[in-house]
Amino acid sequence: MKINSNSVRGTRDILPLEQQTREWVRSVILNTYKSFGFNQIKTPIIEDINLLTKGDSGDNTKLMFKVLKRGEKLNLETAKTESDLTDLGLRYDLTVPLARFYANNQNNLLTPFKSIQIDDAFRAERPQKGRLRQFTQCDIDVLGDESVNADIEVIYVSALTLLNLGFANFKYKISDRRILNSLIVSCGFNAQDCTEICICLDKADKIGIDGVKEELISKGFEQGCVNKLATAVNEIVENGINALNNFEIDKQAVENVSTIVNTLNQLSQQKFSAEFDISIVRGQGYYTSSVFEVFLDGYNGACGGGGRYDNMIGNFTGNKTCAVGFSLGFERLCMLLAENNNTEFKPKLALIYFADNNFSEVMKKVVSLQQQFDVFAVKKQKNFSFQLEKLKSMGYKQFMFFDSEEIKSI
Amino acid sequence: MKINSNSVRGTRDILPLEQQTREWVRSVILNTYKSFGFNQIKTPIIEDINLLTKGDSGDNTKLMFKVLKRGEKLNLETAKTESDLTDLGLRYDLTVPLARFYANNQNNLLTPFKSIQIDDAFRAERPQKGRLRQFTQCDIDVLGDESVNADIEVIYVSALTLLNLGFANFKYKISDRRILNSLIVSCGFNAQDCTEICICLDKADKIGIDGVKEELISKGFEQGCVNKLATAVNEIVENGINALNNFEIDKQAVENVSTIVNTLNQLSQQKFSAEFDISIVRGQGYYTSSVFEVFLDGYNGACGGGGRYDNMIGNFTGNKTCAVGFSLGFERLCMLLAENNNTEFKPKLALIYFADNNFSEVMKKVVSLQQQFDVFAVKKQKNFSFQLEKLKSMGYKQFMFFDSEEIKSI
Repeated sequence: MKINSNSVRGTRDILPLEQQTREWVRSVILNTYKSFGFNQIKTPIIEDINLLTKGDSGDNTKLMFKVLKRGEKLNLETAKTESDLTDLGLRYDLTVPLARFYANNQNNLLTPFKSIQIDDAFRAERPQKGRLRQFTQCDIDVLGDESVNADIEVIYVSALTLLNLGFANFKYKISDRRILNSLIVSCGFNAQDCTEICICLDKADKIGIDGVKEELISKGFEQGCVNKLATAVNEIVENGINALNNFEIDKQAVENVSTIVNTLNQLSQQKFSAEFDISIVRGQGYYTSSVFEVFLDGYNGACGGGGRYDNMIGNFTGNKTCAVGFSLGFERLCMLLAENNNTEFKPKLALIYFADNNFSEVMKKVVSLQQQFDVFAVKKQKNFSFQLEKLKSMGYKQFMFFDSEEIKSI
Repeated sequence: MKINSNSVRGTRDILPLEQQTREWVRSVILNTYKSFGFNQIKTPIIEDINLLTKGDSGDNTKLMFKVLKRGEKLNLETAKTESDLTDLGLRYDLTVPLARFYANNQNNLLTPFKSIQIDDAFRAERPQKGRLRQFTQCDIDVLGDESVNADIEVIYVSALTLLNLGFANFKYKISDRRILNSLIVSCGFNAQDCTEICICLDKADKIGIDGVKEELISKGFEQGCVNKLATAVNEIVENGINALNNFEIDKQAVENVSTIVNTLNQLSQQKFSAEFDISIVRGQGYYTSSVFEVFLDGYNGACGGGGRYDNMIGNFTGNKTCAVGFSLGFERLCMLLAENNNTEFKPKLALIYFADNNFSEVMKKVVSLQQQFDVFAVKKQKNFSFQLEKLKSMGYKQFMFFDSEEIKSI
């Protein structure tokens, strides 16, 4: 009686060769950040459901997997709503858990606290290509450092990580929330409409600036303000950071972006670049100043990004706690590295032995070969050419018979 | 407004120094097994609830965290039972997911398939010291190899892993389910009572063999059979594996245990030992022949164990699939290593800079020191002696000022 052996909808099994790549990516990220004094931490996958709904996480809470209450807490007779039935949820990101962790353990952590998390999060999204219900996130954060140095460090170390992973020619696009906000206000809009207008502007790469104008006007914003804003944005896109001086824009924000961009370019040794880009808005509501994304040459879409969020952690600690974070697109990077197959591992060797060989001697031979190879000891099978084909497809390019010293290619 | 920042009941946050140890243990285990051709795989944390209740996992299914259905699937009006409300569960071990994985991906895996999993499992147990609701398991399995070589290999590589972790003088105690079963039958019991009798015998280390006798008699077993069994067990405990020849015991099982014990002792180079021990029974219902546990000198209780389970995977694949597994006590080993503090890491250095230092130069200095240290760049704080104390408590034994080349001790 065979049962349905698929993994549940929206999740997947990770097979050996892919997991080898993922594990390598994980170790490169951890080692690079660790060498800069970042500390890996771990929080539980299950969190109090009230905590999870407290973050500024918008739609993510709607996509939460909720866990049924247990034992006496569960009363099916009287339960009327989902909240009568559930007390825990699976985390949908690593930021809310980080905030809880910091509130819970602050006294046992350094200030500033430089953290790194590589762990799974869960969202009950409608499954589609590239969108999984369980996925690995990689978040790097500096808590408790208000200076721009923290922004620079999380970005710089992400660049070294990408270099260590074998990527080259990538570009950081950097902005500051306050730049667009002050520009929007200076064009005559109300400050409370900034978020809505930014969401429209974020679509400029898809619908063009004319599309953005149409949408803003259809939303009832004044034609004059909209035209002024569009003209300003066009000029800034065309002329870059220097054009900011032509408008009434928050000076501190401009200085902030300049410092980040210039310092990164000083550090980059031409191996990557950084530039101001007013189009970087980023979805989440909680960023307060810098926002940034990194783009790999030849690939659409960012493969990492982040920003400064000085208000969110305070909701959990009760005290203002400044914070800046970078999230590396772990799933995306692993996919690119698997496709390019440009990761390097210890070569694999199959040591073929025979049923009548002394197994203790087989193991000793395995050990003697391990300086050079990862060694898979396996009995010679009846259909030996099939066995070799299979080994080859699993990454074994070489084999050796137990009674020989000759390494043969498959 | 500060919120409750504790992790949920029965779970915990893992802080930097502990996580550093855990990550090191993880990498030693993975690298050691990898060098013998074992492959890390990953399966989702959420599984179909019907699949999870299908394993031979007894009480574990009662301790399952169940996930509420979502969207149209959930009808609170008509739901009467837990199974109307839930469709997924959090896995309570890694064996049921391995069986599903193997059934799902067998064609893309080598035969035999040597797998390693280090991942979290969840059980809603009543929380108590050392018993967590989320915990890391480390399972090593060989699927599709019926020979005793597979038993030897999973044990031998676990021994090399323990040696690589710095443990010494540990002992494997090995038995075979069929030995006690055949002994029990030869003493006049019915074959179907073997499990119940084994469960009693497993308590011998706590209640003594006399306690076991009392319990068996109180359960209604015949005095004559009980006496005969107790005498036999006593003799075997006293005289070891050679005493087995004096009883009507499954010959294949005796040969199986002898081969495992002898081969391991040939391979051990006196760094660990293996011996037959009839008292090794192990709780789970699914073992079919060899069972084994490993004991560290000076610590109570096993820190790993396993056995052969040739029937369970077949429930998922639909074909008989022999299997042998070893489970390393990951949480236990990490606890022992943290207590002994005998793990070695790259030394940590704090690079203290001043507010007016050029941060790009600070980062360059960090990079120049990374061959030797993990470097935490941090601004000098007002209360510098407090800052140094805090750094020391977090594992920083050395520091350097940005404008100096002198490494000072904290």
